[in-house]
Amino acid sequence: MGMISNLFNDDSIKKLKGNLGIGHTRYSTSAASEVVNCQPFVVHTAHGAVAIAHNGELINCESLRRVVLERGVGLSTHSDSELIAQCLCCAPEDASEHDGPDWPARIRQFMTLAPLSYSLVVMHKDKIYAVRDSYGNRPLCIGKIVPITLGPGKPEDAPAEGWVVSSESCGFLSIGARYVREVEPGEIVEMTRNGFRTVDIVERPDYKKMAFCIFEYVYFARSDTTFEGQMVYSVRLQCGMQLAIESPIEADIVSSVPESGTAAAHGYARESGIPFAEVLCKNRYVGRTFIQPSTRLRQLGVAKKFGALSVNCEGKRVVLIDDSIVRGNTIGPIIKLLRDAGAKEVHVRIASPPLKYPCYMGINIPTREELIANKLEPDELANHVGADSLKYLSVDGLITAVEINKANTNPIKAGYCTACLTGEYPGGLPEELSW
Amino acid sequence: MGMISNLFNDDSIKKLKGNLGIGHTRYSTSAASEVVNCQPFVVHTAHGAVAIAHNGELINCESLRRVVLERGVGLSTHSDSELIAQCLCCAPEDASEHDGPDWPARIRQFMTLAPLSYSLVVMHKDKIYAVRDSYGNRPLCIGKIVPITLGPGKPEDAPAEGWVVSSESCGFLSIGARYVREVEPGEIVEMTRNGFRTVDIVERPDYKKMAFCIFEYVYFARSDTTFEGQMVYSVRLQCGMQLAIESPIEADIVSSVPESGTAAAHGYARESGIPFAEVLCKNRYVGRTFIQPSTRLRQLGVAKKFGALSVNCEGKRVVLIDDSIVRGNTIGPIIKLLRDAGAKEVHVRIASPPLKYPCYMGINIPTREELIANKLEPDELANHVGADSLKYLSVDGLITAVEINKANTNPIKAGYCTACLTGEYPGGLPEELSW
Amino acid sequence: MGMISNLFNDDSIKKLKGNLGIGHTRYSTSAASEVVNCQPFVVHTAHGAVAIAHNGELINCESLRRVVLERGVGLSTHSDSELIAQCLCCAPEDASEHDGPDWPARIRQFMTLAPLSYSLVVMHKDKIYAVRDSYGNRPLCIGKIVPITLGPGKPEDAPAEGWVVSSESCGFLSIGARYVREVEPGEIVEMTRNGFRTVDIVERPDYKKMAFCIFEYVYFARSDTTFEGQMVYSVRLQCGMQLAIESPIEADIVSSVPESGTAAAHGYARESGIPFAEVLCKNRYVGRTFIQPSTRLRQLGVAKKFGALSVNCEGKRVVLIDDSIVRGNTIGPIIKLLRDAGAKEVHVRIASPPLKYPCYMGINIPTREELIANKLEPDELANHVGADSLKYLSVDGLITAVEINKANTNPIKAGYCTACLTGEYPGGLPEELSW
Amino acid sequence: MGMISNLFNDDSIKKLKGNLGIGHTRYSTSAASEVVNCQPFVVHTAHGAVAIAHNGELINCESLRRVVLERGVGLSTHSDSELIAQCLCCAPEDASEHDGPDWPARIRQFMTLAPLSYSLVVMHKDKIYAVRDSYGNRPLCIGKIVPITLGPGKPEDAPAEGWVVSSESCGFLSIGARYVREVEPGEIVEMTRNGFRTVDIVERPDYKKMAFCIFEYVYFARSDTTFEGQMVYSVRLQCGMQLAIESPIEADIVSSVPESGTAAAHGYARESGIPFAEVLCKNRYVGRTFIQPSTRLRQLGVAKKFGALSVNCEGKRVVLIDDSIVRGNTIGPIIKLLRDAGAKEVHVRIASPPLKYPCYMGINIPTREELIANKLEPDELANHVGADSLKYLSVDGLITAVEINKANTNPIKAGYCTACLTGEYPGGLPEELSW
Repeated sequence: MGMISNLFNDDSIKKLKGNLGIGHTRYSTSAASEVVNCQPFVVHTAHGAVAIAHNGELINCESLRRVVLERGVGLSTHSDSELIAQCLCCAPEDASEHDGPDWPARIRQFMTLAPLSYSLVVMHKDKIYAVRDSYGNRPLCIGKIVPITLGPGKPEDAPAEGWVVSSESCGFLSIGARYVREVEPGEIVEMTRNGFRTVDIVERPDYKKMAFCIFEYVYFARSDTTFEGQMVYSVRLQCGMQLAIESPIEADIVSSVPESGTAAAHGYARESGIPFAEVLCKNRYVGRTFIQPSTRLRQLGVAKKFGALSVNCEGKRVVLIDDSIVRGNTIGPIIKLLRDAGAKEVHVRIASPPLKYPCYMGINIPTREELIANKLEPDELANHVGADSLKYLSVDGLITAVEINKANTNPIKAGYCTACLTGEYPGGLPEELSW
Repeated sequence: MGMISNLFNDDSIKKLKGNLGIGHTRYSTSAASEVVNCQPFVVHTAHGAVAIAHNGELINCESLRRVVLERGVGLSTHSDSELIAQCLCCAPEDASEHDGPDWPARIRQFMTLAPLSYSLVVMHKDKIYAVRDSYGNRPLCIGKIVPITLGPGKPEDAPAEGWVVSSESCGFLSIGARYVREVEPGEIVEMTRNGFRTVDIVERPDYKKMAFCIFEYVYFARSDTTFEGQMVYSVRLQCGMQLAIESPIEADIVSSVPESGTAAAHGYARESGIPFAEVLCKNRYVGRTFIQPSTRLRQLGVAKKFGALSVNCEGKRVVLIDDSIVRGNTIGPIIKLLRDAGAKEVHVRIASPPLKYPCYMGINIPTREELIANKLEPDELANHVGADSLKYLSVDGLITAVEINKANTNPIKAGYCTACLTGEYPGGLPEELSW
Repeated sequence: MGMISNLFNDDSIKKLKGNLGIGHTRYSTSAASEVVNCQPFVVHTAHGAVAIAHNGELINCESLRRVVLERGVGLSTHSDSELIAQCLCCAPEDASEHDGPDWPARIRQFMTLAPLSYSLVVMHKDKIYAVRDSYGNRPLCIGKIVPITLGPGKPEDAPAEGWVVSSESCGFLSIGARYVREVEPGEIVEMTRNGFRTVDIVERPDYKKMAFCIFEYVYFARSDTTFEGQMVYSVRLQCGMQLAIESPIEADIVSSVPESGTAAAHGYARESGIPFAEVLCKNRYVGRTFIQPSTRLRQLGVAKKFGALSVNCEGKRVVLIDDSIVRGNTIGPIIKLLRDAGAKEVHVRIASPPLKYPCYMGINIPTREELIANKLEPDELANHVGADSLKYLSVDGLITAVEINKANTNPIKAGYCTACLTGEYPGGLPEELSW
Repeated sequence: MGMISNLFNDDSIKKLKGNLGIGHTRYSTSAASEVVNCQPFVVHTAHGAVAIAHNGELINCESLRRVVLERGVGLSTHSDSELIAQCLCCAPEDASEHDGPDWPARIRQFMTLAPLSYSLVVMHKDKIYAVRDSYGNRPLCIGKIVPITLGPGKPEDAPAEGWVVSSESCGFLSIGARYVREVEPGEIVEMTRNGFRTVDIVERPDYKKMAFCIFEYVYFARSDTTFEGQMVYSVRLQCGMQLAIESPIEADIVSSVPESGTAAAHGYARESGIPFAEVLCKNRYVGRTFIQPSTRLRQLGVAKKFGALSVNCEGKRVVLIDDSIVRGNTIGPIIKLLRDAGAKEVHVRIASPPLKYPCYMGINIPTREELIANKLEPDELANHVGADSLKYLSVDGLITAVEINKANTNPIKAGYCTACLTGEYPGGLPEELSW
């Protein structure tokens, strides 16, 4: 539990022996942060210990739990990790496992029971299996640790060659690794000390389109991550350019809510020809706001988080870009800050379509009732938050921004999950989630 | 994890709703104190959550683990609790459980697989099952919460009637309960809000003798606990009397290493006619001894723990009683303290037989190599620790002390486990523990 | 802040360099346990750092604070330690200190301003000054560290010769030191690496009697401490004997509330000829009692702390000895426990006189209103707590018990402070404390 | 000790009663972070408690300590706060204080003894004195809490009118206050519930120039703070413009090390006409780097902190702006990151002059030996870090950037401390700091 920098130190790192391992960090969401939900999940089996870590959420976890419980297995947590572990502990009926466990067969069996959504690593003895669900909903990529020195340092402190898998490629550089390729949807990759090989590619039911989460481009991934051969930053820049095409406005400067909207703001500026200028500076030391919230206190809370740079907004017509609007609580106070600092007009442009539907695949999105896009149309929202105008990027515009710079746009290999925007869930929703 | 007084407070106690529950405290032994080994162990089953707590240790846990793992169930800890839980999750082959789980049948099945050693509570919905292994190795007794006021207070703050089970009866008074009876060896008791009933008594294999841990009388239980109708204090007093008969000595005073040997010392004094007097006072605030131990530092450590009352030992021949000797590290420095305070002679009398064998049934006894009784005969030990003489109680003497005041001495119903003294393990040792 | 065993470990002990030092532990009383009140108090002066620790309480601290504050010195805490430190920082008016500070003169000046109550150590550079107030109200004694081995260990791990001072002698043995003598009332002792010497003995105002706190004998000191040439345990034994003379009763056994009353109980038994037997066993793991207290819950709380040994009290007339009664909250529930365990009669005998007055000299005694002896006469109290009779030791009896075995009973050298029993404060009460 | 958000919560905030108070947060620098150095420092005086907090560092603290110690006052810490407090406790010799303490006179006396560097608040009873040293080295400004609602919320949760002082104005908005004016160099302002008034303006010795710390503009202050009537952000923008004039270069894009150099980068882009584009994205979750550092590990550490946005630097000639260079450890690895991401040329431009001298006035600057500007000339440094060129802003250029947009450039009222750049310390260095 806790930040890696609090958990590990030189001594604990030195105690880690051996030549392979798996780890996990989680985007901490309130209730679920309990020690029993920590990963990797280690389970003892008849064939020795197995460690499991995953990114994502099993959409049919309730029915899958019933299958396991009715087999007479007790579950001590409500975590997907334990559920996946107990699924993998049970060998497929027809397999003979004289020579030890047939992990690929066990993983394949699990993938048949659980269509999505997960990227998964399974470690047993001297092997790690890296698995991506057959829809490719969550990202997973492979890197290679290279023994060259990166600076003018002595070569002897460089590690030997090695292999890594990760949800995002952006961390590779900081461990001296280079991006190699993505794990394919449905692919089971076996990694050892010596390299990796594809042991199987499990097919999607009914040959439906791939469904990579489009919100990884919009919001989740770090800007310098690469998906599908392109850098996330360039997609966000492109979203801003597309937004300038779809919703132009006469203005003096383009700016952003730092730092989430900055890439798109630069794109909007480039396409529209309106100069970019910073209008908000961010306070890095914001804690929580005390005492029960009220409109006044929310306003003060935003003023604690952001300071207005009046030198850039005084007397100006401002296009203000943000990457998305969820509950719509902060944009109003931000606009008030800008107006107090002298902005003549504030036009809000959101570099993604309206968020309208819940996600059951690992993204923490509030209920439909809390999503402001289900309560107010763009014009009503503009009025509610005190903007001169407010526009979203269209769904088609977003897809265009994602695909425009890609070589491969074959829809089978490169479809997207847009469920939170359109309500179209890949493979349909399981009965247990009907709403 | 931690002391109950650190874990609970008024607020957390008030949050506990409902009318039944189970809890567990453990005699903390070094390595095993990890949060995953905390009890109760809660497990989700096809029939809802089940909570399990137990006292004792499964002697055949290794073979039992293999049975569970080969059924395709993963185990996430090495604790007996989880193992018991997964055993109970699996319904007996031939049972039809249309109307919900048949817990007595499941518990019976577990008891057949695991002969000893445990006292066990299993909570499911509105019932608690209290179970004692068929050898009765570990204690378990039933109490009744009584709604009368205990002092001149107002009656309204007294709880309604209720029922409790516990390893030791000594805690009953402090929750306003009265001792009712012991759970019988092999008995499965079902407890509800309204009372308790015996649902089964599982028989011992081959009608061997009952094997209640005799060290509960010698060392573990609190003095005011009642086992088999007699108070532990009176057994300890009797051990001292028996010791006076077996190993008399001419002396001026009888005394004890406080507080473990005090009851036996009073017994020795009563039987021998030699007056009792305190020779050591105990420092309640002893922490650990810093810096690597040496003979000198061990001496200082004992001087930190005990002060000699020279007023009582100056010029006296002292009989010094202790309840047991394990590693024999502290008795030497204690004798030196007494001699420095003026004692003319120090005769050590130990109110239990020599400890020679390991225990696999829940009692933390060092390895055979560390047990001083396996290294030195009593006379050698007397010499080693600087005593004028040193005698143990005999095994027969201990059994006499335990049985002399009991009405019922039927050996089938009232045998004892003396494995740590004699090496005779009840039911024999499983192959996995052969040494 | 905290227990020494939590604050220090091998590493931190090893880091302590040098050949002299002072330390302090405090009997933690609620509100005053703040880090600013921790001792030793270190203060930087024109002559370098000085460290100060003391035991006791300045009765005229309010007027002394005014003196310091009006000199233009700010005080950052309300602790006596800081006040003593600032008094010592100020050199006496008429002294010339060309060759460095004249600490004895500074200490003498402080002692004139503050008559009582304190034992004090002041460390500066390579010297420690040990000081006892001129009434000798608080204890202080000198010990010598001896380089001999205490056991059969190697001599090389023994420290060189050295000197120690301490409030109680009982700790000397555990650091390998031997008791040498007490610091005299008013004495200023200078200690260095090579030994100690008396630099002055400050006289009491008006040659009044010495006033050593008699409650050190009754309650505070550990039994194996030596004051005035006699062991505290033997005074407590004597108190029990005196009590048997003053308040005899026909009974079957004498017993005690463990462990505070045990020494006196053995004395009562010895004098009366009635045998001693334990009737209560103490639970070492008692935490706090949850939920607001009521009579019932206090009863349960006492039942959590003590278990009755019915084997010894069934059908018996019991004399129950305790060392003192303060608020009188626990004796009632204890008597109830004994009656429930079968005691026929319970006669309470308290081995000290009734506590009636507050202490301003370092002993934490509740307000007069809370002291039960100010509310109920002994017979009323017997009735209130359900005892068959209840008697206190007389003040004269207590003084007899303290003096009977002493060689020197010169009242100038060996008077006692009995303020909490008689209201006679040594030297009279300062105006600021008049009540 | 610790982050405000960890120290306070709703309950603790609600417990704060009264209508005035002072607080303090510190830029935590290694060794000095001890609880005894926490502010405010509260001291009890003959006139009641006084609380003191300050920003800055007393350059003559050693000689000032000697004055206090020789007056017979002990100091328990090495903090400036306690030293200031004891100075203020001592009333000026010639003042009669019949009607309570004359705080302005005491503060004036302190200011005469301690020329710089501090902004100071002193709270006593119902008044707060706000003080700025006579050189105006550290900033201090006054704000007014306004009872209007800031958003469409209910007016009743707005506080009554009030007054605040702070080192930086940027926090005012987040507590609902508006900037009023700066405290003048040497000014003593008395604040009460009803307003504020100037009680004195203490003159600088010898009418030397004011000496406001120019590094507040360069590095310390938050961008949205206002000093001398201008926003810090606009000074930084101006520094970038000035840098473009002084050290132009042909390039394709201007970029910055986020976020410290971004304002200056926008200024450089504006002046040079070269477009701004982001080339680095910052990882917010960077902890420490484990294992002993080496060149390779420093490279990996920088790669953990920053990701290169290859989409913007591939094939480009990049001008990279940072606000300052101290030890010069990170700029090399950053340049390597950009080259690996395809940058054709990297020209470093630093928006401040070389840092060459230590600061004794509250700014934590390494020793002269550690400052890279004392070891390498700009061209050597360019070579050392792998830049195609490297230029600093000139001292005159920095002063121009600070003054160009100000109305008032009277050097008496608006000089700057540039000691860390030029070695010219305001008022000269006290003997104790000569190097």
